[in-house]
Amino acid sequence: MSLRETSRRLAALGIVRPTLLVDRRRVQANLDLFAGRARAAGVRLRPHVKTHQSPAIAAWQRDAGARAITVSSLEMASYFADHGWDDVTLALLVNPRECDALAALARRISLGVIVDRPAVAQALAGPLRVWIEVDVGHGRTGIPWQARDLLRATRDAVESAPDLAFAGFLTHAGQSYTGDAAAVFAATRERMCQAREAVGGACEISVGDTPGCFGEPDWRGLDEVRPGNYVFCDLMQVQAGVCGEDRVACAVACPVVASYADRVVVHGGAVHLAKERLEDARGAWYGELLTMDDAGFGPLRRDRRVTGLSQEHGVIAGEGLYRQLAPGDVVLVAPVHSCLTCEQFASYRTLDGETLPRLRRV
Amino acid sequence: MSLRETSRRLAALGIVRPTLLVDRRRVQANLDLFAGRARAAGVRLRPHVKTHQSPAIAAWQRDAGARAITVSSLEMASYFADHGWDDVTLALLVNPRECDALAALARRISLGVIVDRPAVAQALAGPLRVWIEVDVGHGRTGIPWQARDLLRATRDAVESAPDLAFAGFLTHAGQSYTGDAAAVFAATRERMCQAREAVGGACEISVGDTPGCFGEPDWRGLDEVRPGNYVFCDLMQVQAGVCGEDRVACAVACPVVASYADRVVVHGGAVHLAKERLEDARGAWYGELLTMDDAGFGPLRRDRRVTGLSQEHGVIAGEGLYRQLAPGDVVLVAPVHSCLTCEQFASYRTLDGETLPRLRRV
Repeated sequence: MSLRETSRRLAALGIVRPTLLVDRRRVQANLDLFAGRARAAGVRLRPHVKTHQSPAIAAWQRDAGARAITVSSLEMASYFADHGWDDVTLALLVNPRECDALAALARRISLGVIVDRPAVAQALAGPLRVWIEVDVGHGRTGIPWQARDLLRATRDAVESAPDLAFAGFLTHAGQSYTGDAAAVFAATRERMCQAREAVGGACEISVGDTPGCFGEPDWRGLDEVRPGNYVFCDLMQVQAGVCGEDRVACAVACPVVASYADRVVVHGGAVHLAKERLEDARGAWYGELLTMDDAGFGPLRRDRRVTGLSQEHGVIAGEGLYRQLAPGDVVLVAPVHSCLTCEQFASYRTLDGETLPRLRRV
Repeated sequence: MSLRETSRRLAALGIVRPTLLVDRRRVQANLDLFAGRARAAGVRLRPHVKTHQSPAIAAWQRDAGARAITVSSLEMASYFADHGWDDVTLALLVNPRECDALAALARRISLGVIVDRPAVAQALAGPLRVWIEVDVGHGRTGIPWQARDLLRATRDAVESAPDLAFAGFLTHAGQSYTGDAAAVFAATRERMCQAREAVGGACEISVGDTPGCFGEPDWRGLDEVRPGNYVFCDLMQVQAGVCGEDRVACAVACPVVASYADRVVVHGGAVHLAKERLEDARGAWYGELLTMDDAGFGPLRRDRRVTGLSQEHGVIAGEGLYRQLAPGDVVLVAPVHSCLTCEQFASYRTLDGETLPRLRRV
């Protein structure tokens, strides 16, 4: 439908200020796709809930078959433990200042952590599952996959600690976001298998990144996948050709506060959308308008970009847009990076009017 | 002091996870500078509290002489009204969907709003002070300063509404962030005075942007200034030459989780620092390391940049940095844009160990 009809639909939902909307139908299609693939391949799906941080949406993932989750902070681990998840991997290298708190949580649930050196493993206490993080080319964190001696020494440090159980090798091949995701995934699988061989072969392999899991990846040899962003997807994934635009399942409804000959301005700024950007020959942009259709979210308006973003304002450049949108209207902005956008809000609103709270950092 | 000594100092503060720190001594110096200038010039200082959104820090501003504040959302206006502020300007163009809520708040406190067209003024109700937003060249929102007929028509619409009081002309010359701040300020003053002459001269002029107010601006003819960022400043201001680095008064303490030959990785990502960036010939960066000294924050380490930022991780590139920092250490990261960084946290911690809550959007 048109931007004006979309505005009427959003107004009927009672939108008065910047509001994070989620289209459950699209989320469900995303969950079903990944759950079906994991089942068919016999690989454990351990979704990364950092994308949504919502107990309600995690419950949808449980309904789709997930029995375990991944988180990226101790606070998030505790929050989801409080919401009934008893098998959690904290996929951020152990912060030695949190060892006591990790041990305390590990007495309540089955908790996995990741390390990249023997010394940190030796500092751990508590009944922890310990993964060794492997760097398969991302260059952020982990032991390089070719560093066989360090892989073995770290594994030995884990195995010699009485409270720790060595789980296996884990990686986040984040380079898939900027490269050929299928090629990155294939190389990741091969390199992780090499790392496992370096320690004799008897452990699990866990990989995780949404772009690599789209397409039709070959999951042989893998035990676990940990995608997060697939729940909502976003413009970054669409722009990279990873998924179709009909997979974008969250967006920010923003009231229009000004319209001029060459632009429309909304209440919806960096504090709502987060300042992740895409860039091409036309410049940088921070979001695109999304339309509604009868069932929920509809097509993107790829010609209508949020080209400016200050603290509370978003600017949508476009000659003549003022003929369709005036103060009092509401637009829907698809995010560049849904994980960061969702982090800006305390809750989601579904298209049925339900409010879904999410973790807020203290 | 060195990065290692800074780490010890931060550990002594009890830092275990990413924490927003504020150096009150530096904040006080910033407040005193601006308050003194406003007093000397006989101009009302109406600080924009969107930068900190903290009732405690607003109280420091009150102690320095402020009697009125500026906010950028209705939620923020209500929050500060609840904390004793009875003279508030909401400096974001009226969102027509909030007219009823504005009227309700205006019955509790003296509330100012801004408009840019007659139709929105006519939709307003309640005992509101109404400013007309003027665009003096920023190109985001407001009536262009040369559009005398539209300025007059909008003023007439305000004056003909029984509940509204015409306050004057207001602008945010945001182009000062990327241009010559002193020249922008001078042009702003001249253009705002022209706008006032267009309607006969009997109204106030309010300007606001931190870069323009630094230096030694000529405030003749102005009635009010509304800087916000001056409380904390940030790398953007330092990089533009607007202020010295000793004015940077907030920073994020981040635990180190990995150190390698060419980089150190901290728990402190886009969800903590916000993804505002600076860019030069060496590339983009998202923060710089800050050291402590005996009294509080010390010099920046301008050679130590946060060059990568994912959701929870920050990467500080630098050969040999691993010799000074290992997992278990803590670093202090100065933000590129303090307003956006502070928005990521629920509270501040002072160097005396006090916790100062701030508004969290619902």
